[in-house]
Amino acid sequence: MSRLTIDRHRLMQDIHHTAQWGEGERWGQNPTEVGMARLALSDADKLVRDWFIETTEALGCRVHFDAMGNIFAIRPGKREGPPTAMGSHLDTQPAGGRYDGILGVLAGVAVLRAVHEAGLETEYPLCVVDWTNEEGARFPQCMMASAVWAGVTSIDTAHAVASVDDGEVTVGSELARIGYRGDTAAHHTATPLAAHFELHIEQGPILEAAGQRIGAVQGVQAMRWFTITVTGRDSHTGATNFENRADAMLAAAKMIVRSHQVATQFQGLASTGLLTVHPGSTNTVPGVVTFSLDLRADADPKMDAMEAALRADFAAIAAGTETFTDSCTCGRGCAVSWQTTARAPVARFDDDCLRCIEEGAEDLFGAAQAAALTRRMYSGAGHDSVHTSTRVPTAMIFVPCRDGVTHNPTEYTAPEDCGNGAQVLLNAVLRFDAARKA
Amino acid sequence: MSRLTIDRHRLMQDIHHTAQWGEGERWGQNPTEVGMARLALSDADKLVRDWFIETTEALGCRVHFDAMGNIFAIRPGKREGPPTAMGSHLDTQPAGGRYDGILGVLAGVAVLRAVHEAGLETEYPLCVVDWTNEEGARFPQCMMASAVWAGVTSIDTAHAVASVDDGEVTVGSELARIGYRGDTAAHHTATPLAAHFELHIEQGPILEAAGQRIGAVQGVQAMRWFTITVTGRDSHTGATNFENRADAMLAAAKMIVRSHQVATQFQGLASTGLLTVHPGSTNTVPGVVTFSLDLRADADPKMDAMEAALRADFAAIAAGTETFTDSCTCGRGCAVSWQTTARAPVARFDDDCLRCIEEGAEDLFGAAQAAALTRRMYSGAGHDSVHTSTRVPTAMIFVPCRDGVTHNPTEYTAPEDCGNGAQVLLNAVLRFDAARKA
Repeated sequence: MSRLTIDRHRLMQDIHHTAQWGEGERWGQNPTEVGMARLALSDADKLVRDWFIETTEALGCRVHFDAMGNIFAIRPGKREGPPTAMGSHLDTQPAGGRYDGILGVLAGVAVLRAVHEAGLETEYPLCVVDWTNEEGARFPQCMMASAVWAGVTSIDTAHAVASVDDGEVTVGSELARIGYRGDTAAHHTATPLAAHFELHIEQGPILEAAGQRIGAVQGVQAMRWFTITVTGRDSHTGATNFENRADAMLAAAKMIVRSHQVATQFQGLASTGLLTVHPGSTNTVPGVVTFSLDLRADADPKMDAMEAALRADFAAIAAGTETFTDSCTCGRGCAVSWQTTARAPVARFDDDCLRCIEEGAEDLFGAAQAAALTRRMYSGAGHDSVHTSTRVPTAMIFVPCRDGVTHNPTEYTAPEDCGNGAQVLLNAVLRFDAARKA
Repeated sequence: MSRLTIDRHRLMQDIHHTAQWGEGERWGQNPTEVGMARLALSDADKLVRDWFIETTEALGCRVHFDAMGNIFAIRPGKREGPPTAMGSHLDTQPAGGRYDGILGVLAGVAVLRAVHEAGLETEYPLCVVDWTNEEGARFPQCMMASAVWAGVTSIDTAHAVASVDDGEVTVGSELARIGYRGDTAAHHTATPLAAHFELHIEQGPILEAAGQRIGAVQGVQAMRWFTITVTGRDSHTGATNFENRADAMLAAAKMIVRSHQVATQFQGLASTGLLTVHPGSTNTVPGVVTFSLDLRADADPKMDAMEAALRADFAAIAAGTETFTDSCTCGRGCAVSWQTTARAPVARFDDDCLRCIEEGAEDLFGAAQAAALTRRMYSGAGHDSVHTSTRVPTAMIFVPCRDGVTHNPTEYTAPEDCGNGAQVLLNAVLRFDAARKA
């Protein structure tokens, strides 16, 4: 087993250097205390992609991108065959941080650099993947392009998804505009991988609270995304009494409250992050309200039951027959419709990959320390690894993030944790590669 | 008493002719079954203003506009003195109809036409007013320019109000852009009026249900508009449990539901027609939600009590200490702030003006029929007459509107009712003018 070392200083330089493309909100005095706003397939996304290709080519990679703009930087090994991959994403939320996704890709670059500078020839090729539109912020379908690669979403469906702020702008048109709509099919048969390792910040408080440094992630909770449309009737706010209204905003507000009540009962999660009101005037009771509903649960049957309960309750709220909300009528009632925009079952990751990660942590910390500093855990957030895990052995590495805060400009992971994560990624990938030889 | 007659056909022609400026959503097969989208100070608003000036000048009026763009078309009488005015507005909601406001101004034009074509010289001048931004849709302060005229709102405050979709665009900049920022002060001392009569569609179901044709409106319920801002913290929808969230959207949804519960208890009204979510992503628990709150009540003390109750309840919801909503936490809690954007107390209209309207209805229907076809009533909606009534004798005339529907493209008032309203307006104004002679 070669013992290579990550250039931790260079990794942090890459994180802060590439932040120039899509710089977001400043939150502190330090030059690095700036959030990110690098929406998928924006001009800023194109620029960081160009940098990624140039950098990995200089590290001896052959680079190609597929019809979804997923970029695969492949460094040849002794033999031909599907590469052992390290993947995550370079896009961010509209008010996001510097680490979510970005750390996973740039740590992959740091692994390539360590291997390249040592002149190491791996058994099989290594690969770093930048997956397109993991966030689903600008184009509201998260983990989009890994879902296409895994065969869960069709390429046509993905290309047709429109931007949240301009219905004329689609994933397909923006891929073409920035020059990242490739000729290779976006499919696991066209770019096969042997495994997928993803380093990511935890986005939760568990590691920090426990004083631990590495999470070996064994799975991800189930998620479903919906767009809910409530249709009532526009009317005058002063002249229309409650009985004569069909108030889409009131019905939507009741549904949002109800989704939290039901999710609490099921020990799942419900969230609404997007909401639009039509026609949009203080003086008009809204005729149409559209909102996003993001559901999470740690078991698929629980998710099924939670969705079924909410469908029944939303229908009752729209019809005005609900009894959850005292003394407050939706008047003549509204119509409600559901559109599913993303769904992923509970993911269970691969035991061999998890062992490579845990042994990689032992390589870093020593066996005794590693037991104290490492834990197996589940992820609350979805990741591209959810989709790769349906096709190839997959596991994830978590590092702590301050106060569990993410999707926020103040998101922060200490340089030491970034470096630890990258080192464990390197160790795990080399262990997986060595095992393939046998 | 001169007996003049409205040219009803010409009135309907004017309604449909001027609808070309700001045509909205089509809702039927008939060429006139199209709604309106003539937002205040838009290009369409400029075009209909130009038409209004050209048309009233041709009917012998001197026309000027003030610093708020209120247009006064004044037809001289036998003596100098403040004119007897007929006013309403030509702006509409973003998805509005052809009658709300428009009927009142164009009926005023029809009155001028009847007087002009008869060669009648009134005792004092007559005037038709087009009040700027009554709707408060694009610039969210309703009855804005009549409030400035009455001295309720300062000109600087009104000029500074920004558009709901572009913070750089203000009332002042748009008045200048379309050429309607006049040199005359926007104040009742600069353009004094002797009285204000306003014909308007009812925007409610009462006249239609009672089979009556004319409402003599003796007052308007109180209204207050607020912009509520709820501030929590952006976080990841999948990785952040309910306890660790500060979910501005959930808190806002609870407040909207609560506003309806409290308004129901007070027999008032509460409505939310605008709501924006920041940062706006399915995957991010929103950190900031801003929404409009429109309150109405038929007595000022009731309004005070309702507002006080809601301020206490919203604070409790934000803090997470409320008990209205079972088993659903706002986690770490949010901050809530209130900004008042418009307020009007209960308005009581003038008895002399009301008598002129009721006698005007007798002129039209005959005394026996008029008793059955006319009623005194209150208005649920606010109107420019609320503000004029604080300075000069004021009353309103209502005509039925189908199914009480307004602020909606399908808003409809039958030609017969439009004509009846204009005829009663003519009769009432001539009666008021004649009484001034005495």
